[in-house]
Amino acid sequence: MKLYDYAAAPNPRRARMFIAEKGLDIPVEQIDLMTGQQFSDDFKKVNSALTVPALELDDGTIISEVYGIWRYLEALHPTPALLGSDAKEMGLVAMWESRMLLEGAQSVAEAFRNYAKGFKGRALPGPNSYEQIPELVERGRARVGHFYEMLDARLGESEYVAGDNFSVADITAFVTHGFGGWIKMPIPDDHANAQRWLKAVGERPSAEA
Amino acid sequence: MKLYDYAAAPNPRRARMFIAEKGLDIPVEQIDLMTGQQFSDDFKKVNSALTVPALELDDGTIISEVYGIWRYLEALHPTPALLGSDAKEMGLVAMWESRMLLEGAQSVAEAFRNYAKGFKGRALPGPNSYEQIPELVERGRARVGHFYEMLDARLGESEYVAGDNFSVADITAFVTHGFGGWIKMPIPDDHANAQRWLKAVGERPSAEA
Repeated sequence: MKLYDYAAAPNPRRARMFIAEKGLDIPVEQIDLMTGQQFSDDFKKVNSALTVPALELDDGTIISEVYGIWRYLEALHPTPALLGSDAKEMGLVAMWESRMLLEGAQSVAEAFRNYAKGFKGRALPGPNSYEQIPELVERGRARVGHFYEMLDARLGESEYVAGDNFSVADITAFVTHGFGGWIKMPIPDDHANAQRWLKAVGERPSAEA
Repeated sequence: MKLYDYAAAPNPRRARMFIAEKGLDIPVEQIDLMTGQQFSDDFKKVNSALTVPALELDDGTIISEVYGIWRYLEALHPTPALLGSDAKEMGLVAMWESRMLLEGAQSVAEAFRNYAKGFKGRALPGPNSYEQIPELVERGRARVGHFYEMLDARLGESEYVAGDNFSVADITAFVTHGFGGWIKMPIPDDHANAQRWLKAVGERPSAEA
């Protein structure tokens, strides 16, 4: 098994934190997104979506998309459960993780990719070119602010994002905070519930993954 | 158990098709998104994200987000498996469903919500107001076109989107095609592989859900 990775990028980090929480040791191969290695003929053969992370199984099957990698590895290595351990928890983890991704990570990506000079013509990931749209920088930043308010409120009622247990919802939220730093929007200091949680998650060994 | 639904909208339909495939009978309550019933105080208490579908369990727990509802119901009713039946299939289904959602359904939503008169100030779902951005209409339409090409290519190598078995990846892709009709962009007639698949999925009883 091998993980195609790019150390600096947020989506591969969501996979790496999961792997670290499971205590797995999976070899990685770096695909340098900054020099456009994902557009190489070699990588096109690996993943036609031209994204990392992508997990190559021993039979050659490629599983890309973070959720795909999570589901595969959770099925093989059920403990500690990071996708929920009973029906209700599975539902709530998937619900909260969806919100962290769609309202959080995608909002930072919108602000970042429509702004950064290196992403001209690549405002969206994948094989097709999309120009930057300046209005999305401001919209993305507004969305990130609203997201952090929602996250802080949620963490005022629950130890972790999806409930009593650490899960992939925490991974996506934590990675979103780090990614937020790229647009100088980490979780604000006055979001006390989120800061309490940030400290706890930041002390887990997987935070270094 | 009760499903908060809106019959015309694509996301609730993803939940309803799943429920129909499982042969479950879950009472529904319509939340009229066209008159803004999701903004009512009553519905805010149900789901602060102000979205449907949302599943209310008998203990009062609310599971919203389509993936949350799917995971919960699949855990309670494992057959027929719609999220994969072994580790590899679980990974591939999650991977392909992610792509159908992020590249397909979200692209139609981008084109539609930034165009439709009724969505002024509501270019994104949820409690916060976001203005329409006209450039996203064209970008969304371009993305839908690229998505259908990718889907057609994929269905040239596989009976269903994620492999040999019908799964949630087919549900999201099929619903995206229907949603595409709202912007006059159903799957094009000359996409023969996708048309073959569309006919097969359209003949399933769940297509009426």
